[in-house]
Amino acid sequence: MTMTATDATVEIQGLIENWAKAARTCDIDGIMAAYAPDIRAFDAISQLQFKGAEAWRRHWQACLEMGSGPTIFEVHDLLIEAGDGVAYGRFLLRCGGIGPDGKEQIGWMRVTVGCRRRGGRWTIAHEHSSAPFDMASGKALLELQP
Amino acid sequence: MTMTATDATVEIQGLIENWAKAARTCDIDGIMAAYAPDIRAFDAISQLQFKGAEAWRRHWQACLEMGSGPTIFEVHDLLIEAGDGVAYGRFLLRCGGIGPDGKEQIGWMRVTVGCRRRGGRWTIAHEHSSAPFDMASGKALLELQP
Repeated sequence: MTMTATDATVEIQGLIENWAKAARTCDIDGIMAAYAPDIRAFDAISQLQFKGAEAWRRHWQACLEMGSGPTIFEVHDLLIEAGDGVAYGRFLLRCGGIGPDGKEQIGWMRVTVGCRRRGGRWTIAHEHSSAPFDMASGKALLELQP
Repeated sequence: MTMTATDATVEIQGLIENWAKAARTCDIDGIMAAYAPDIRAFDAISQLQFKGAEAWRRHWQACLEMGSGPTIFEVHDLLIEAGDGVAYGRFLLRCGGIGPDGKEQIGWMRVTVGCRRRGGRWTIAHEHSSAPFDMASGKALLELQP
């Protein structure tokens, strides 16, 4: 059976929806289920890159432990381009949570994923998340709106 | 004729090499030749996103006018995964230039591209460039080394 681009797009949408739901519920195993073992990740914070699922899991775990209470992790403006076995997706991510002062601390990030299909299943083999920064101040621009 | 993943990888490598060479020589037409008209770009600086080649060209032009003298723009650690008509690539970019004080100002960025093949030609339909930031200070981490 040949997989059409539409089939692939629907499957990858599901993959990203499940991943985001797992992030909202701080389910580390659910998050990691989306990734290929050889994931290479460029995250928004801390390091230039993360190599492999083990290092990436440790970073995710540290990120989950930073927050408390309900986590906002919403996928917006998702576009997927899928071919036969390789795809990429890009979206805006509204994310944050409730700070110790009870106020929402929310920002918009940009996310790109590179996906591949092996053994009948799509996984994320590459992830790139970021916020842009301001050239003059060197500060991350966390209050930009789409 | 069916295009193999290897053919596609070689073509996309060439696309990225030509794009980087154009960036080094501040050749705006050469840079823009790599992109699809409907490019959606997440750049390292200034804005959350850029929609379409016209907006993206204006931003590139502004970036090129920031620098003076020889521009460092080196692609390292490139990995491409290519399917039938869709591909993604990711790499580290060593970039910068010589400042007014004669000193090199160089940093490492992360770049991901989403590519598609239409009319026998690969183009970049999505680009995501960034530096990570430090959670405590909110500052972009421009001195990290791979």
